[in-house]
Amino acid sequence: MVHNGIEYGDMQLIAETYDVLRRGLGLSTLDAADVFDRWNQGPLESFLIELTARVCRVMDSESGQPLVDVIQDKAGQKGTGKWTAEIALDLAVAIPTIAAALDARVLSSLKDQRVAASRRFEDGSARLRADDCERTIIDLQDALYASRICSYAQGMALIAAGSAEYKWNINLSEIARIWKGGCIIRAKLLDPVRRAFGAQPALSNLLMDDQLGREVQRAQHGWRRIVSEAAGAGIPVPCMSASLAYFDSYRTARLPQNLTQAQRDAFGAHKFERTDRTGFIHANWS
Amino acid sequence: MVHNGIEYGDMQLIAETYDVLRRGLGLSTLDAADVFDRWNQGPLESFLIELTARVCRVMDSESGQPLVDVIQDKAGQKGTGKWTAEIALDLAVAIPTIAAALDARVLSSLKDQRVAASRRFEDGSARLRADDCERTIIDLQDALYASRICSYAQGMALIAAGSAEYKWNINLSEIARIWKGGCIIRAKLLDPVRRAFGAQPALSNLLMDDQLGREVQRAQHGWRRIVSEAAGAGIPVPCMSASLAYFDSYRTARLPQNLTQAQRDAFGAHKFERTDRTGFIHANWS
Repeated sequence: MVHNGIEYGDMQLIAETYDVLRRGLGLSTLDAADVFDRWNQGPLESFLIELTARVCRVMDSESGQPLVDVIQDKAGQKGTGKWTAEIALDLAVAIPTIAAALDARVLSSLKDQRVAASRRFEDGSARLRADDCERTIIDLQDALYASRICSYAQGMALIAAGSAEYKWNINLSEIARIWKGGCIIRAKLLDPVRRAFGAQPALSNLLMDDQLGREVQRAQHGWRRIVSEAAGAGIPVPCMSASLAYFDSYRTARLPQNLTQAQRDAFGAHKFERTDRTGFIHANWS
Repeated sequence: MVHNGIEYGDMQLIAETYDVLRRGLGLSTLDAADVFDRWNQGPLESFLIELTARVCRVMDSESGQPLVDVIQDKAGQKGTGKWTAEIALDLAVAIPTIAAALDARVLSSLKDQRVAASRRFEDGSARLRADDCERTIIDLQDALYASRICSYAQGMALIAAGSAEYKWNINLSEIARIWKGGCIIRAKLLDPVRRAFGAQPALSNLLMDDQLGREVQRAQHGWRRIVSEAAGAGIPVPCMSASLAYFDSYRTARLPQNLTQAQRDAFGAHKFERTDRTGFIHANWS
């Protein structure tokens, strides 16, 4: 089940990347295929990246265009992504990238509403302000890679939580090895995942592995630039931005939920903890 | 239930705003209270904004600091937000802002992991590059307002879907009137929501209302700037960016899910539709 949740995340991240290449940079589908082929020689090497390059090259004999270009933009689903999201809610594990991928499929299916809304809100050129195409493609590779690591981190955290809850004693390193053996998310990235959990079976989060943490650190700059530019240009990148918010939440020692706790105590007497001692207390806020 | 889901979204949006004011712009908690008080005179007028200003002014007699500043940043929850997210999955309605608010509470609770990760990934100053503080506060107001509209739009769409599914014949305009009467999400925004569904009971999405659509259009620039700047500075804004991705997905006539459909057909023979005729077909992708 979690394999399929990660698959949803991976596919939506690739779709967002393809959208930035096509609309954001103005590349043709065949040019985009070249980019995916090139990436498949590096850290992004995976079945899904290879497949993306391949499907982008298939021509439609009727129209003479790439077949992808004449396919309707409404994604279907068989329910395993939904199932992953449900279990994550039950186990209270945050899997925002995977959840956003599910929502992206749902929103894509509202084709008539989207067409009507596009007339009112003019979706415009969506072209990035960036003028350096090669630089942007490198940043995009970093954005996709770092986002993919976050998506795998969420999936592994979900399996770890399920394993603890149901006393399944799952070996996460073995999971990575099995997935590498032949499945839709088979990817070079599974090698460091396997090594990470092999070395530290109780690793709290994949982001805390030395090698993967360093790689995310390195990819940060381009990742932030792509999310920023896409927000400015009006290209939706729900999974890339959910991944970035996940990373930024996870690495922030002091988040603003102290305010949330104050609000909850003020309107509902839900109590809060103080930073300087343990125990729950209620305050008079009036 | 959906009231509480919207409440989660609203509270998290306010928390993100407070974080940008505090860390992003360097304002004190009392200065932030002034900003919320000022906003409460405009379109953001609401119980939660008023409450935010109020709780930010309560001083802690022990430390002499604002009480909010000594509250632990781990948000609790009673389960109604989770319930909203579950039903949304069942009804296949996208409520990404509300779902992101839930995840933000979950991530906030991982305090020990966050503190450890902050040492590795140095969360730094998180200061925005923006040097015009007043301009940024205006943009932030727009970002919060537009994001709030998206959150209400998602909640109303969920109620509409439930009403259709269970044949409850719910009057959405009445819902807005009742909420305005006295509840945690009571807000000036409920007036145009009430009017919108009063005029068009079958309105497909709140964003398609003339007045609210115009207001989002107007707020767009500042909203995009805040999401961009926060991504650059490393301040997590999961709900603001999920709202923006929701808006940008909804207003885009042609999304990249044509690629998703091509991939699904290539690896799983799930079939796809063409843009130039109806019916599902399978292609040979090898």
